[in-house]
Amino acid sequence: MKKRIAILGSTGSIGQSTIDVIRQHPDRFEVTALAAGSNVDDMVRQVKEFHPSLVSMSSKEAAEEVKLRVHGPIRVVYGEEGLGEVAAHPDADYLVSALVGSQGLQPTLTAIREKKTVGLANKETLVMGGAIVMEEARKHGVSILPIDSEHSAIFQSLHGENPSQVRRLVLTASGGAFRDWPREKMEKATREEALQHPNWTMGAKVTVDSASLMNKGLEVIEARWLFDLSYDKIDVLIHPESIVHSLVEFVDGAVLAELGMPDMKVPIQYALSYPDRLPLQTERLSLEKVGTLQFREPDLKRFPCLKMAYEAGRLGGTAPTVLNAANEVAVAHFLEGGLPFLTIEEIIGEVLSQHTPLHEPGLEDLFDADRWAREVAQQCLEKTF
Amino acid sequence: MKKRIAILGSTGSIGQSTIDVIRQHPDRFEVTALAAGSNVDDMVRQVKEFHPSLVSMSSKEAAEEVKLRVHGPIRVVYGEEGLGEVAAHPDADYLVSALVGSQGLQPTLTAIREKKTVGLANKETLVMGGAIVMEEARKHGVSILPIDSEHSAIFQSLHGENPSQVRRLVLTASGGAFRDWPREKMEKATREEALQHPNWTMGAKVTVDSASLMNKGLEVIEARWLFDLSYDKIDVLIHPESIVHSLVEFVDGAVLAELGMPDMKVPIQYALSYPDRLPLQTERLSLEKVGTLQFREPDLKRFPCLKMAYEAGRLGGTAPTVLNAANEVAVAHFLEGGLPFLTIEEIIGEVLSQHTPLHEPGLEDLFDADRWAREVAQQCLEKTF
Repeated sequence: MKKRIAILGSTGSIGQSTIDVIRQHPDRFEVTALAAGSNVDDMVRQVKEFHPSLVSMSSKEAAEEVKLRVHGPIRVVYGEEGLGEVAAHPDADYLVSALVGSQGLQPTLTAIREKKTVGLANKETLVMGGAIVMEEARKHGVSILPIDSEHSAIFQSLHGENPSQVRRLVLTASGGAFRDWPREKMEKATREEALQHPNWTMGAKVTVDSASLMNKGLEVIEARWLFDLSYDKIDVLIHPESIVHSLVEFVDGAVLAELGMPDMKVPIQYALSYPDRLPLQTERLSLEKVGTLQFREPDLKRFPCLKMAYEAGRLGGTAPTVLNAANEVAVAHFLEGGLPFLTIEEIIGEVLSQHTPLHEPGLEDLFDADRWAREVAQQCLEKTF
Repeated sequence: MKKRIAILGSTGSIGQSTIDVIRQHPDRFEVTALAAGSNVDDMVRQVKEFHPSLVSMSSKEAAEEVKLRVHGPIRVVYGEEGLGEVAAHPDADYLVSALVGSQGLQPTLTAIREKKTVGLANKETLVMGGAIVMEEARKHGVSILPIDSEHSAIFQSLHGENPSQVRRLVLTASGGAFRDWPREKMEKATREEALQHPNWTMGAKVTVDSASLMNKGLEVIEARWLFDLSYDKIDVLIHPESIVHSLVEFVDGAVLAELGMPDMKVPIQYALSYPDRLPLQTERLSLEKVGTLQFREPDLKRFPCLKMAYEAGRLGGTAPTVLNAANEVAVAHFLEGGLPFLTIEEIIGEVLSQHTPLHEPGLEDLFDADRWAREVAQQCLEKTF
């Protein structure tokens, strides 16, 4: 039987790659429901190709425009409620959660409660709500399959292994656009420079997070929940070529790793086809062509965002939510222009320093902490400029 | 319950490492029977430490010497018959097959017929008798677990995966002592130079085979049988640092690999503890310390032994037996001194060119081919000198 898939964020970078994968396997997958932001053109194209029965857009206007341009038996909804409808669609077995930012948490939880398998690309779901989300998944017997290339590499390396025999995880990081830049140069970095990721083509927010290593910090927190390991057992390794996607060291000294050319379709398809592997048209890895792989320790002095992420993760409770919200506000301002790159880390540091973490927070506490952190970050920005 | 282990070749390089592993886990493993060549001192030490109930040495003299120096309820035997007794010991569950050369085939088959699990370090068992051995293992429901670091890496990467979803195996090779030597320099290579392996400490025969890449060729043939894949799906990759022990590429483009510091104890212990992993005192891999990993294609012009191994493997039947026997004779002469290094490949080529492979050979046919190839190799040597 075909896997019936709902996608949150279908016109974004991960969403489009998910669509590519589904297109390669019409006998295996079908699209049941789609949600996007305001990209009406792409959504209309996707509807015409895959005929989902439900579509959601971020605004009423965008939803109405989609409705005017498509035909057939389709329901078009919008907003937060629309995301919830897509996540809970009764005809879907599987949710690809690929929204960007904290808006991903609530609909992902909805899908878990409706017993959908979740392919998770939205980092914030676990960064903010890790404890709650994993507990709900356990309670409802739902699998959460990682779509990030790093977590997928770990997930693949752990397949068939006994988790109690893991000594540590090693998340690799390309090092981002400023990998080799001194702090003085990073201070004057422009939006365009930050968006020059050495290996991966991704959304703007994630690319800036790569340049600050906050992306890796969020991934460390995500890994802590996905694989149920303490932060002492999760390390980060700079690997400029992004060929080794991450590694797992076991108690016997053996290290398993997943490697490949940088192509998000591989982890996306694995999350969709797991535990099977399906043929995929993608560039094959030729290590003889790559020639050299390099590795070095991350420099926490040049990249304090990574250090702050570990600290917030270890504090726990609402601290990772606050870290993430402050980062979202600061990065948005950086992308709009005007905010110096290194001010991102200053804003995050300032907001975290004003925060007293609440332990074992409920969902509402998380959203309160998220709102609070956004406000304080905004105030910091206004004070600075 | 403890795993009761018999070891063929207990005083050799793999045998000693096996003993080290067993020593670290007295609650898991015990030594039931040991076989060695003529190293009486080491055997006496092993008997005093582990108290096996059966010991075999290569000669009657060595066996009598051992008997004089040990006490307690122990039976000491010798020769081919002795190897068979150790392999078939009724109190053992598990045979570590770590003899060097073609003498390993017969006792390994004996163990399979007696339904012992086999940890296989003896390459020739599969190079010569791959078809017969794998068929017998299937028939008797016996697992053959690889002890070579390359095959163990593949075995670990395949664990939990569907073999039909493998696109190819990639065996890594350090490149051996002459990795960067031009042919003119290899022509004048001495025994001592050939024994300078860049990464691994191994027996002399295997180290010379590494220098000619015949070792990798024999491993390709071994992999063909262990993993039941055609030669088109088995590649070799030069990797000077020997950190990536081998890789598996799947149909979706994902590549899984096992990495680690060069230490045979890791694959040996994995073969003994499979599917569990046990803590092991061994140097931990730090990729940030290693810094750089390099990869390149093997140069079949400088290393024709690898090419001949593929050719013999593809010919099948008795051809790999002949390749292996000719190589054993030539390498023995090289190690005794006097034979130029590049004459090894000439002898093998000459013997192979005189051989008409017999298809679907029985065990006796294999031993006949082995004897024939040794005689012809000897004649070639006598003609040349």
